[in-house]
Amino acid sequence: MHAEPPHLPDPDAGLFSPVRAGTAVESVTTERAFLRAMLDAEAALARTQERLGVLPRGAGEAVTRLCAAAGIDVADLAHRARAAGNPVVPLLARLRAPGGDAAAYLHHGATSQDIVDTALMLTAARARDVILADLRRVLDALAIITADHVATPMPGRTLGKHAVPITFGLKAANWLLLVLDARDMLRRTHPPVQLGGAAGTLEGLGPAGLIEAYAAELGLATPATPWHTRRTPVAALGAALATTTGALGKIAADVTLMTQDEVAELEEPPAPGRGGSSAMAHKRNPVLSVLVASAAAQVPALSQILHTSLISAHERPTGAWHAEWLPLRECLRLTGGAAETAAELCAGLRVSADRMRANMKITGALDGGLGASGDLVARALEEYRASPA
Amino acid sequence: MHAEPPHLPDPDAGLFSPVRAGTAVESVTTERAFLRAMLDAEAALARTQERLGVLPRGAGEAVTRLCAAAGIDVADLAHRARAAGNPVVPLLARLRAPGGDAAAYLHHGATSQDIVDTALMLTAARARDVILADLRRVLDALAIITADHVATPMPGRTLGKHAVPITFGLKAANWLLLVLDARDMLRRTHPPVQLGGAAGTLEGLGPAGLIEAYAAELGLATPATPWHTRRTPVAALGAALATTTGALGKIAADVTLMTQDEVAELEEPPAPGRGGSSAMAHKRNPVLSVLVASAAAQVPALSQILHTSLISAHERPTGAWHAEWLPLRECLRLTGGAAETAAELCAGLRVSADRMRANMKITGALDGGLGASGDLVARALEEYRASPA
Amino acid sequence: MHAEPPHLPDPDAGLFSPVRAGTAVESVTTERAFLRAMLDAEAALARTQERLGVLPRGAGEAVTRLCAAAGIDVADLAHRARAAGNPVVPLLARLRAPGGDAAAYLHHGATSQDIVDTALMLTAARARDVILADLRRVLDALAIITADHVATPMPGRTLGKHAVPITFGLKAANWLLLVLDARDMLRRTHPPVQLGGAAGTLEGLGPAGLIEAYAAELGLATPATPWHTRRTPVAALGAALATTTGALGKIAADVTLMTQDEVAELEEPPAPGRGGSSAMAHKRNPVLSVLVASAAAQVPALSQILHTSLISAHERPTGAWHAEWLPLRECLRLTGGAAETAAELCAGLRVSADRMRANMKITGALDGGLGASGDLVARALEEYRASPA
Amino acid sequence: MHAEPPHLPDPDAGLFSPVRAGTAVESVTTERAFLRAMLDAEAALARTQERLGVLPRGAGEAVTRLCAAAGIDVADLAHRARAAGNPVVPLLARLRAPGGDAAAYLHHGATSQDIVDTALMLTAARARDVILADLRRVLDALAIITADHVATPMPGRTLGKHAVPITFGLKAANWLLLVLDARDMLRRTHPPVQLGGAAGTLEGLGPAGLIEAYAAELGLATPATPWHTRRTPVAALGAALATTTGALGKIAADVTLMTQDEVAELEEPPAPGRGGSSAMAHKRNPVLSVLVASAAAQVPALSQILHTSLISAHERPTGAWHAEWLPLRECLRLTGGAAETAAELCAGLRVSADRMRANMKITGALDGGLGASGDLVARALEEYRASPA
Repeated sequence: MHAEPPHLPDPDAGLFSPVRAGTAVESVTTERAFLRAMLDAEAALARTQERLGVLPRGAGEAVTRLCAAAGIDVADLAHRARAAGNPVVPLLARLRAPGGDAAAYLHHGATSQDIVDTALMLTAARARDVILADLRRVLDALAIITADHVATPMPGRTLGKHAVPITFGLKAANWLLLVLDARDMLRRTHPPVQLGGAAGTLEGLGPAGLIEAYAAELGLATPATPWHTRRTPVAALGAALATTTGALGKIAADVTLMTQDEVAELEEPPAPGRGGSSAMAHKRNPVLSVLVASAAAQVPALSQILHTSLISAHERPTGAWHAEWLPLRECLRLTGGAAETAAELCAGLRVSADRMRANMKITGALDGGLGASGDLVARALEEYRASPA
Repeated sequence: MHAEPPHLPDPDAGLFSPVRAGTAVESVTTERAFLRAMLDAEAALARTQERLGVLPRGAGEAVTRLCAAAGIDVADLAHRARAAGNPVVPLLARLRAPGGDAAAYLHHGATSQDIVDTALMLTAARARDVILADLRRVLDALAIITADHVATPMPGRTLGKHAVPITFGLKAANWLLLVLDARDMLRRTHPPVQLGGAAGTLEGLGPAGLIEAYAAELGLATPATPWHTRRTPVAALGAALATTTGALGKIAADVTLMTQDEVAELEEPPAPGRGGSSAMAHKRNPVLSVLVASAAAQVPALSQILHTSLISAHERPTGAWHAEWLPLRECLRLTGGAAETAAELCAGLRVSADRMRANMKITGALDGGLGASGDLVARALEEYRASPA
Repeated sequence: MHAEPPHLPDPDAGLFSPVRAGTAVESVTTERAFLRAMLDAEAALARTQERLGVLPRGAGEAVTRLCAAAGIDVADLAHRARAAGNPVVPLLARLRAPGGDAAAYLHHGATSQDIVDTALMLTAARARDVILADLRRVLDALAIITADHVATPMPGRTLGKHAVPITFGLKAANWLLLVLDARDMLRRTHPPVQLGGAAGTLEGLGPAGLIEAYAAELGLATPATPWHTRRTPVAALGAALATTTGALGKIAADVTLMTQDEVAELEEPPAPGRGGSSAMAHKRNPVLSVLVASAAAQVPALSQILHTSLISAHERPTGAWHAEWLPLRECLRLTGGAAETAAELCAGLRVSADRMRANMKITGALDGGLGASGDLVARALEEYRASPA
Repeated sequence: MHAEPPHLPDPDAGLFSPVRAGTAVESVTTERAFLRAMLDAEAALARTQERLGVLPRGAGEAVTRLCAAAGIDVADLAHRARAAGNPVVPLLARLRAPGGDAAAYLHHGATSQDIVDTALMLTAARARDVILADLRRVLDALAIITADHVATPMPGRTLGKHAVPITFGLKAANWLLLVLDARDMLRRTHPPVQLGGAAGTLEGLGPAGLIEAYAAELGLATPATPWHTRRTPVAALGAALATTTGALGKIAADVTLMTQDEVAELEEPPAPGRGGSSAMAHKRNPVLSVLVASAAAQVPALSQILHTSLISAHERPTGAWHAEWLPLRECLRLTGGAAETAAELCAGLRVSADRMRANMKITGALDGGLGASGDLVARALEEYRASPA
């Protein structure tokens, strides 16, 4: 007898992506979560259509129950998706198999892209909340570092060489403002519902006002019209996520430089087993920074695919739309992993003010003053305090 | 006697980039314009420092005069820039050569990056204005097309095949909203001055308030603190420009598909010599769309370099900053060229409603209704009317 | 009682990537396959070290047995990989837990990167074989189309408009040569073993000759020296895979243009359910081409990450190496999916010579001759015949 | 009276690109050089057609004289190129203006893309030679460093932290092999002529054998058939150039890390004014490395555009071809600048073996042996010696 089910799915646990393995963002970006989001999109559509009188009373609940009970096998669905090029066609076939009223009300007037896009935006909205919460933790930690080290002098470094002195507080203040910028950009993204029907006219779906009602039902933003081939919401998410990993990647780059044995001004927060090496027992690698950097090296290229998909022909393109799904998911997941990792890094960063001072002595050029460092740090902290929670 | 000067510079007329050759954006993005912007940045700094009492009375005017009179050879400056890695060091050497008070007041407390970044942002701000003006022309033209064709039926096309009917007005409304999105994004960029001194502390430059005053003097935005290694302003420009060419590229993609001989629903505005071929005298190529598409195929990748440069180590990175200059300039120039070209395209687009109707007959599936097309078009036009001039 | 195991892994079935869902390349690129490859790398190392006298007799078999029996949970391993930043450290902890001789011989003198890189190259080599087999099927199908249509006239099209006539055989000959080029490039990649120890000196591992012996044991190529930070093998794979999807993407682009209802010169091979729409029962979308195009839109950007990772600092970089794993896996998997899909497409493509002729009549300019089309087709077929099986 | 000509062209001297300003590659990649290459392509075509009897005796010389004497204004040509989307149409108009036999023989049966592509490949071939010569200088310098420091111990560094010891010779050997790999890849590119006529059938041009004869006339490679939309030669150039800047960028990254004041193991070759700062007179920046790194940060993204252009619809695409010209030119020019700069860097690199030894003492872990370092260095030098001159 088998203890193990015959068709255990291939896992997606992050063996190729340690930066996100086990982080909170994963649970909202799995294939199961995406399937759930598609079912949510279908159910919400029926409820909304009932509310607007497009479908008879009871239709919403019937479809909602149908979708809730659906025991869809993700792997089976993924394989069947090849025939039509998207998972909604086989999903509907499965949901409609039992027949009945719910089957008739399901997906009424909709097109596959309405459901896939709405599900992607639900996924994005859920991941965005996770990322924003972690960025808040990053900001809080950075604000403490900034305030603590407003008077900690250290070498400014330009092109890798000592320049005039700065304070570590000023360096951290720059990190703080950078993450604030990225967070503001991510906060300004508002993933919208998609609803247009076969070619974006809402034919057979309902009146134009259905879009607003659908958005309200799902808690997503309302687009002026269907955006089947107006992909600015996706491109904006990509840009915000690339900016976020860029901001975190800048911090990671500085930390790895400052943890070099010759510099030794920072140390990553220690934890059992963290930073270990398979070859050298003594070694403590700046592994949190390295993981953050690994995400920062990937997201800009992935995000570029989303920018390129703006060029979406006619009412549905021949490939550009299908090319968005994976990069968007990876952008969300890598950024979420990077944000959680950066929060851990910033909250436990160990600072050696002594070593900073000692390093200043290496070059004679560091006797200069600190200029307006204090005022600049105060400005950064003021921006932090004024920022939304 | 020579009719021709001995060292005519190598031209940068756009032989590799017809999309921008001869367009308005060129004049604000040349190497000469960038040099002029650097001189503007130096002169404005001295005036601002005088105003705040950092420099004695008269210093501002002296430096302004020095910069105005400077007969700098761009090619010579570019070659000398290799030694220090940036053009400011040799520029100062040239400006200071005559000696005197102005030389002493010049670049007081500043670092090369203050001047290069401020000049890049002046360049970006000037190009942005040119692009926004052309996008306005695009929008105006698209609004007319949209309104004119609110009742012109045509085949909706998904994955290249006929779907249900749409109107050409609805297709144009989507273009309109797309360009509105891109324009909004570009309008939200506010290129800031750069001012920080050797390592961003303002040491030797003046008080923190100098930043605001400098911004006011140049008409640029005020950053909270120096952003030597907080490159969000540059990344935001890149994202906005990639979104803009993406939006225009989507229009171009649709137009080239609709000008195919088998489809023949659109024709580009004719002009003497336009769209000609070196091999076939009869041919009329959709050359405006092709040029726009050529920009749209380049800007996302160039913009990605700007996102990657967010990872800028310490107080000045070892390459990432220098890697921004060319891509930013090309993003600005290619987008400007694409916007001017798209304005020409949209203003003169020839529409064959007859052919659209005829094409609908190819597939029997097109007898359906137009759904909420009219309302959706009205929404788009409303957004257009409500948008800032 | 639960019918379902408590911790079913999150599936990686391709719900975001229909182009590869269910294709042959998947089985060699899963996380389980990568884990298996890491175990293969460890076992082969011990066997090789025994053979060269670095380890005592029996060590190879002991380690091989240890690795074969290992019941490692991939998800658990992935989560633990975060602590050290790579999966080898927790993998060794698990393998060594029982203690004994095998534990002592395991990973003798090696570093994590030796195992991860060797496992990645094993994965690449296995995926490469799958892809090459599918490209062979593509080539065979294209050769038949080419030969069949050497005398089938059709409109040549430049910038979307009719130019002079060509033959469909000539168009297919160009596809054939393009895929031959891509295949040659992929064939020229020879994934090498990685072996260097902690910093690439082979200290504690064995003599320099161990590299050759290790390569022979695993059937991978031999590098001159450890390539921990000489990432040309990875970049070369990326370039070859991007070229391959580019070649297949060109075919897909032509097919989608030719299946437009107004053009109707080609039809994709029909199959039950294929090309269906959730909104329009009558529709037959060119879904194979769309899937291929979706891969072609992603791989160049993913491959670019691999080129950027050439910049790998010192003896192991702070992020660039970790950033390679996911993009390389996705490049392999997307290309494999595209190749299998393209093979299906090309083997069943339906050609309407009548429609090609009819379309030629649209423009009067098509009365010209066919030039050297026949000779050019013959050349392409000659290259095909001369190419290795 | 004007001392200055009324329409001095806008210069393209590299003010945005110091890495290539004044380097040897510039002269073969200017707009003037490209114009010259287009004229070379036209002249060679007529000579080849005469040789094969397609044109009457004397035609080749007549066209060659016409092209040699052409006083074409590049800026004027670039502006006129917008109308047809490429410069060949207005170039022909200018050349044909005087009328006569030569005008009739010019561009006989050719299409614009034949001339533009052939000119781009001539440009690429000329730039490739310049780059290969500089890479040879890099290799020679690295071989000397490698041999000199085969026994110079230093800390191996992984993830920024000391690992076990290596030798500086081993580090340099890795650089050497990396540049050898890149050079081999660049050597394997063979830019071909383009010749196909309006739609690639050679109609009106001559027999298929004209391609070989044309290639021989110009010293370029022979393609099997016209490659108007088989862009592997361009993609291969892009990949080779991205690999080259990646290899040089790796060296630059290591050098900037080793020139940090805290590390001080290397110093860039000093020169008057080199590495100076506008703010700090004492500073010596590693400016050669920074310039190389700035190219390495740009070329992969630019090269990706060339990979994406593999997707070239039908017999000439609607934008993808036009999008290649600028990125290819910049890839060539940036790589050429990086190679010349790297040659200067490597030839004069100053090594402090004392400091390497001193840095080893920082961490106790460095007492280990050097493994097979010596043998590995010997292998690298053997590869270097065996490589073609």
